[in-house]
Amino acid sequence: MIPSTLSKDTIIALATASGHGAIAIIRLSGPEAISMVNGVFKGKNLEKQASHTLHFGTIRDGEKILDEVVVSLFKGPASYTKEDVVEVSCHGSPYITEQLIKLFLRQGARLAEAGEFTKRAFLNGQFDLAQAEAVADLIASDSALTHQVAMNQMRGGFSQEIKALRAQLIHFASMIELELDFSEEDVEFADRSALRNLITQLQRLVTDLLRSFEMGNVLKNGVPTVIAGKPNAGKSTLLNALLNEEKAIVSDIPGTTRDVIEDEAIIGGLRFRFIDTAGLRETLDTVEAIGVARTKQQLQKASLVLYLFDVTSTSPAELKAELEALQLPQVPYLLLGNKQDLATPEQLAQFQEFEHLIFLSAGTKAGLDELQQTLLEQVHANEAITGDRTIVTNLRHFQSLQKTSNALLEVLQGLDNGLTGDWLAADIRRALYELGLITGEITTDDLLDNIFTKFCIGK
Amino acid sequence: MIPSTLSKDTIIALATASGHGAIAIIRLSGPEAISMVNGVFKGKNLEKQASHTLHFGTIRDGEKILDEVVVSLFKGPASYTKEDVVEVSCHGSPYITEQLIKLFLRQGARLAEAGEFTKRAFLNGQFDLAQAEAVADLIASDSALTHQVAMNQMRGGFSQEIKALRAQLIHFASMIELELDFSEEDVEFADRSALRNLITQLQRLVTDLLRSFEMGNVLKNGVPTVIAGKPNAGKSTLLNALLNEEKAIVSDIPGTTRDVIEDEAIIGGLRFRFIDTAGLRETLDTVEAIGVARTKQQLQKASLVLYLFDVTSTSPAELKAELEALQLPQVPYLLLGNKQDLATPEQLAQFQEFEHLIFLSAGTKAGLDELQQTLLEQVHANEAITGDRTIVTNLRHFQSLQKTSNALLEVLQGLDNGLTGDWLAADIRRALYELGLITGEITTDDLLDNIFTKFCIGK
Repeated sequence: MIPSTLSKDTIIALATASGHGAIAIIRLSGPEAISMVNGVFKGKNLEKQASHTLHFGTIRDGEKILDEVVVSLFKGPASYTKEDVVEVSCHGSPYITEQLIKLFLRQGARLAEAGEFTKRAFLNGQFDLAQAEAVADLIASDSALTHQVAMNQMRGGFSQEIKALRAQLIHFASMIELELDFSEEDVEFADRSALRNLITQLQRLVTDLLRSFEMGNVLKNGVPTVIAGKPNAGKSTLLNALLNEEKAIVSDIPGTTRDVIEDEAIIGGLRFRFIDTAGLRETLDTVEAIGVARTKQQLQKASLVLYLFDVTSTSPAELKAELEALQLPQVPYLLLGNKQDLATPEQLAQFQEFEHLIFLSAGTKAGLDELQQTLLEQVHANEAITGDRTIVTNLRHFQSLQKTSNALLEVLQGLDNGLTGDWLAADIRRALYELGLITGEITTDDLLDNIFTKFCIGK
Repeated sequence: MIPSTLSKDTIIALATASGHGAIAIIRLSGPEAISMVNGVFKGKNLEKQASHTLHFGTIRDGEKILDEVVVSLFKGPASYTKEDVVEVSCHGSPYITEQLIKLFLRQGARLAEAGEFTKRAFLNGQFDLAQAEAVADLIASDSALTHQVAMNQMRGGFSQEIKALRAQLIHFASMIELELDFSEEDVEFADRSALRNLITQLQRLVTDLLRSFEMGNVLKNGVPTVIAGKPNAGKSTLLNALLNEEKAIVSDIPGTTRDVIEDEAIIGGLRFRFIDTAGLRETLDTVEAIGVARTKQQLQKASLVLYLFDVTSTSPAELKAELEALQLPQVPYLLLGNKQDLATPEQLAQFQEFEHLIFLSAGTKAGLDELQQTLLEQVHANEAITGDRTIVTNLRHFQSLQKTSNALLEVLQGLDNGLTGDWLAADIRRALYELGLITGEITTDDLLDNIFTKFCIGK
């Protein structure tokens, strides 16, 4: 850990979202936080008040009243940063917050850098690095699953797993290093078969965590799901039906090109990114080279393909031909027989031979529940929802876990090849180093900068 | 005053601006505010804590942790609404605030209507109506002057003036009404010449307040300032130079028509709305009927006209011709001789005969300070800046003051015509009624609804 030299100065930032609101919060942290606010506050003497108390008064710039405010006092170490923290709750006018911040800057405060409050919290031992990183994830969370994963990580769930792995490795590393001290006597304090068992077991845990990153990625970025089908199949009706289910959290993302439309819907707490490609229409209608190429490009991005067809106007032979023309990539796909409500039982029966087929009516929303459930099953989301399985969502953590995995593999190979303790110890130390980077037991300035500049200012 | 029946239920709203921030505040007010939060809060027992204290803990929906929060307790009447108020400071994720609000709604809270917290504060006697209205103005304030006027009004400056007026009128009204009790005895408790003096004096105060509304309007909406001149005069350079002075608070307003561009700049704490009309160009170049009409339309909107010309390429005769072609409306105008830095002393000397002329260089910004100072002088902004003169910014207040003024005029006429006390009393009562509407000593449900629905939710 880097010794904290930050806390000599007092930082300030707007802590609430920008824009007009009923109230806004300006947060100060550092040794002068209380005296700086007290210097411009008319009300009680803040320096004589207890921690965790609230005080009404006015903030004045000379004789001029800038605002009536409520001041929250948190005396270190009982605060977010473990330093003295003051939060000034003022009227939510951007003009006022700007004037107040300028006033405090003139008192000697410094505008906080992105993530600097949380960086101080980390440096002062409030939480470890993986927990600090989860704070940003929590703020960015926009679905039940991203929220749950970030909350679990912020509360130390992930860190505990990493620390448990590390503690076991440390034990063996110290045994092996003890051997090195007695190397001329050729003793083995560390039982080689117990070490092999441990490493194998750790490797399994690391592999599980590495695998979870796929889900973590999906949680963060959504499941890319291409909706394909001929123009009259009812794609937009289906898309609207899916989107309407969770209208409050739906957002439009302008497509990168004019003929690709993306929409997002949260289904069962998981985000799906629906990609509707106009190219497909041309493809199927005119079998045009450009259209086919464009369509295939879209399909390559998919983790899931929904192929929609109209059961009242499509024969099984036509459906087969359409699917062959599409050359679906090696991803899970679902065939969606639309307009079920308008079809005769005979029409439906024709499609018995097809697998992964769901009948539905995008118009009446019949079959929509089944579709949503199947979507979730396709991406194994249920695993993530049920239970408290740790999911790696952070690329940095993923990369350190990969390097840990490589180091553990070399330990195993070293054991197979009868390598001496010093070689094994070097590989174990590499694994320890990488695990330590995740929780911040080992850090560098660059690493911290890289992490905290991605935060918003005020956090 | 309407008796408060609101406080039977507990209201809730997001109090900070929406969007992602480091933290967000959810505010509850009402008899169940503390118990509702306590029911889902894991930490201390909030019901046993003192007012004005802060408590860290988690909010849980069953076993599921929704967030780590800091709870602020304000026990009525020592709170904004004078009811029990709890503010929950959570991570600034829209997903989290939505989940928390939903949780509290399930506990029986009701989503607050726009302005409902402030409405409760008013109904519970925290402040009067004019002060309550100033809260919304304060949040909307975006310049030094709008801020100062709203702050003065919120802190009761305006209300004190109105109440002082009202108190004097009440005194005379009661004297006159006393006469009515003794009407058969034909006594005059109210000295008629003292009454005339008082009413004249009150009328003067009311007239001053009414006049201030012009400035109030300008403060709220900006000074409409048309920038005119031939295409090569340097209008956009000037506009940019003016805007750059206060870049942080400048915003673009898309024109209502394609050929009118509006831009705003805060100069000396006052907002100027600069209207650049492309129509003028055509007018001067082609003397086209449509162009002239459009230009005149723009000029009609102006409170101030800036006519820019290039001193290096315009002769005094040409300038005169241009101004005659324009037919400037009866508003203050300034002639701006641009490209001063490129002109010879002889070129500048030619224009000696013109009044309201400032030489400047939009490119080098020479002369810009003088222009800004002159702009401020033109709208008498200095009056508003210096001293604590009350400025009426609210149309409702303006209308009540107008009716007050009419009623006072009728009192004066009644005195002139020797009307009896009962007639005078009726007019005085009308003035009292209108003044009472401003501060909310007299209110109606419709009036309150009309006022508070214009607030943001959470305030």
